[in-house]
Amino acid sequence: MTEIRPEPEAGDDDFVPSRTLVAEIAEAIDEEDGARLHALLDPLHGADIADLIEQLTPQRRQGLVRLYSGEFDAEIISEIDESIREEVIEQLPAEVVADAVREMDSDDVVDLVEDMEAPERETILSALDESDRAAVEQSLNWPEYSAGRLMQSELVAAPEHWTVGEAIDYLRAEEWLPDQFYHVILVDPRRHPVGYVTLGRLLSSQRMIHLRDIAEDSFRTISARQDEGDVAYAFNKYHLISAPVVDDDDRLVGVITIDDAMTVLDEEHEEDMLRLSGVNTDSRVSDSALATARQRLPWLVANLFTASLSAMVIAQFERTIATLVVLAALMPIVASTGGIAGTQSLAVAVRALATRDLNRSTAPRVIRRELIAGVLNGLGLALILGLVGMLVFGDPRLGAVLAMAMIVNQIVAALGGVLVPLTLERFGLDPALASGTFVTTLTDVMGFMAFLGFATWLLI
Amino acid sequence: MTEIRPEPEAGDDDFVPSRTLVAEIAEAIDEEDGARLHALLDPLHGADIADLIEQLTPQRRQGLVRLYSGEFDAEIISEIDESIREEVIEQLPAEVVADAVREMDSDDVVDLVEDMEAPERETILSALDESDRAAVEQSLNWPEYSAGRLMQSELVAAPEHWTVGEAIDYLRAEEWLPDQFYHVILVDPRRHPVGYVTLGRLLSSQRMIHLRDIAEDSFRTISARQDEGDVAYAFNKYHLISAPVVDDDDRLVGVITIDDAMTVLDEEHEEDMLRLSGVNTDSRVSDSALATARQRLPWLVANLFTASLSAMVIAQFERTIATLVVLAALMPIVASTGGIAGTQSLAVAVRALATRDLNRSTAPRVIRRELIAGVLNGLGLALILGLVGMLVFGDPRLGAVLAMAMIVNQIVAALGGVLVPLTLERFGLDPALASGTFVTTLTDVMGFMAFLGFATWLLI
Repeated sequence: MTEIRPEPEAGDDDFVPSRTLVAEIAEAIDEEDGARLHALLDPLHGADIADLIEQLTPQRRQGLVRLYSGEFDAEIISEIDESIREEVIEQLPAEVVADAVREMDSDDVVDLVEDMEAPERETILSALDESDRAAVEQSLNWPEYSAGRLMQSELVAAPEHWTVGEAIDYLRAEEWLPDQFYHVILVDPRRHPVGYVTLGRLLSSQRMIHLRDIAEDSFRTISARQDEGDVAYAFNKYHLISAPVVDDDDRLVGVITIDDAMTVLDEEHEEDMLRLSGVNTDSRVSDSALATARQRLPWLVANLFTASLSAMVIAQFERTIATLVVLAALMPIVASTGGIAGTQSLAVAVRALATRDLNRSTAPRVIRRELIAGVLNGLGLALILGLVGMLVFGDPRLGAVLAMAMIVNQIVAALGGVLVPLTLERFGLDPALASGTFVTTLTDVMGFMAFLGFATWLLI
Repeated sequence: MTEIRPEPEAGDDDFVPSRTLVAEIAEAIDEEDGARLHALLDPLHGADIADLIEQLTPQRRQGLVRLYSGEFDAEIISEIDESIREEVIEQLPAEVVADAVREMDSDDVVDLVEDMEAPERETILSALDESDRAAVEQSLNWPEYSAGRLMQSELVAAPEHWTVGEAIDYLRAEEWLPDQFYHVILVDPRRHPVGYVTLGRLLSSQRMIHLRDIAEDSFRTISARQDEGDVAYAFNKYHLISAPVVDDDDRLVGVITIDDAMTVLDEEHEEDMLRLSGVNTDSRVSDSALATARQRLPWLVANLFTASLSAMVIAQFERTIATLVVLAALMPIVASTGGIAGTQSLAVAVRALATRDLNRSTAPRVIRRELIAGVLNGLGLALILGLVGMLVFGDPRLGAVLAMAMIVNQIVAALGGVLVPLTLERFGLDPALASGTFVTTLTDVMGFMAFLGFATWLLI
């Protein structure tokens, strides 16, 4: 029903340090062999070193940090997962951290310090010179998860009346430029962004041409207050590479680049997927078993209570079951098929909310479609189950009970799967949050109630 | 248990055509008012026009295409979802399509034609001049979902011995350059890529400097055979903006840019989420109710059979249930809490496989962690449920049965959630595919079996 795509021969472990390398590094750490550790780690990208650090046991991690501390630069530190970054930083010499922080773009410093306590944050920020520090603090004044937190203050802007030649001369003379930049942002005298020029355009144009004449057609600024998820959506939809960020007076305050937007997109997906399944979004593969258990327990306990609802429904029909015990065996079929249908409808709805395909204009049509699809699949499943019920148990009434309950529960599932996330969204909540538990509770309760209800009516 | 993030005031419908606009456009179409339709659509980005086209009913969609056909350019056509793109193209005048195709980068042409039948493909390709057509056909020779399909042939390469001045003069003189490019790829005389220079670096360097002296430290080529999912992973991990693609002889054949990688990342996430929930990954919010029902039915039917396994298990214990009917009411609690735990463990594992945090080096540790977490949560839930069972039903033995079954099923759930996707992955299958059904069948069957088994042993 879905195509199966074979993995390439190299396997999924491409772009991941090999098992052999991990083993060699562990050995070098255990033997306190700093020279060998350097030889192994030096050729790696910062992101791979960060991966390795995350994969090591806490003891070996400390060993690695101790033996390799001199090489920790902005890149490695930025790439280490938040869950262990503070621990690593505490162990590094203050000098190394200060050097790394000075190397970082302002968005990486913000990412580093935003969840720190005041004293730790102060230690980091004191490494910066005054203007860099001001940029970071300005960023921290914007709400969490906003464009203002995501942007970097390092950018290249030019007056709109400049020529290509003036811009190039400026870039050649300017000592300090961002590590990576893809556009020159054109600003008016009050620093309102009015357009941008790609570097490719700048490079391929004659020196006397005005920047405003080679600006891109499509230009979009992002408010510093915009939610970071919306920013990622806009980058993906409009194929933006970088976008200027403006404050409440529409003045240029920073720039967001697509690699940061891609990271946000990735995190938002992770949140959707984990929340749908009732998992705390802070959980990491590197967490301890105790932390894992603690993160998951709340939903499990919540489920104990919602499952008790099903138990209470069933308890109402104890006399029916005592009379016809085969009902106890058959009742999970209706409930579980409803659960699957609800989960399907829910996954599609949560995904469509994320891609904005499900929005206020399309909602009525999507709800109608789910309803009809629920009826159709209810009928299809009812036919199969009704026939099987009749053939296996030789009782057409039992077949009819199964069929009727299945139709009711498929409709409930289809509607619940789309209405639950839409309702959460309307109330400003994350549509993925708790939706799964809601919907399966609904389909369980309705499944048992419909099946045992019809059975009591028709069979007893 | 997870933080709730309030949406910004503007709501989630930012970057989506407003309901008013959609209504006005529908009205303009219904009134065949081409002038008004142009006035409404002309200011929009191609991606928004594509969104609108997807949201309209099929009749209105045809009306829009008829009234607006002259304006369909490369951007709009590339942005329309595959599910309706061919239908739109068939309706457009051949001339309009040919112009749009000539405007496209080779990767967009590949995306357009790769799923077409031979005659339709030929019509499109015949619009291209010989070299563009050769580039598209070369791309189509690489496997589906490979880097070779994702790359564009439009790129800027320069001999490594050139100076900045030579490169700039070349760019100024060259009439034909890609719409968007961010690097100059350095090649040796046999066209092997040996490094790259960012345009920012090029612009800010003196004319006499050699390109090889300002090349980036970290340089990575991508094999045209690489799976597109791995490419997206590499872009996200290493913060790449563009990367050269090489053939089997390591010769430069194209370039992949981050916006394409971001699209792939987004699609891979969609696949993971939908597959985990048993939904066909081709499904779209714009699908008809009948198509929706048909896409979902296979998993529902599959679930009928797996649910029958549970029914058969329960049927073995009919005598036990007849003796103590309260067991029928209580048995779903153990099964459903197991289902939640299995889903949690599964979502974390599938996500970790996608981020490569779960790989061959970390698998043993992750499995051990899941096992311990399962035991811990089993004990915790057993304690609650055992106490409740005892207090509500006044029977310590019933509490003990609930508690024991819960512990067993939590362990099964935790292990199943990680072992099922790992096993699928090991056999080269998509770890998300069917995992959900597998794991919940496992927890249902084990839940009923353990609960009724212990009950028969201790209570009857």
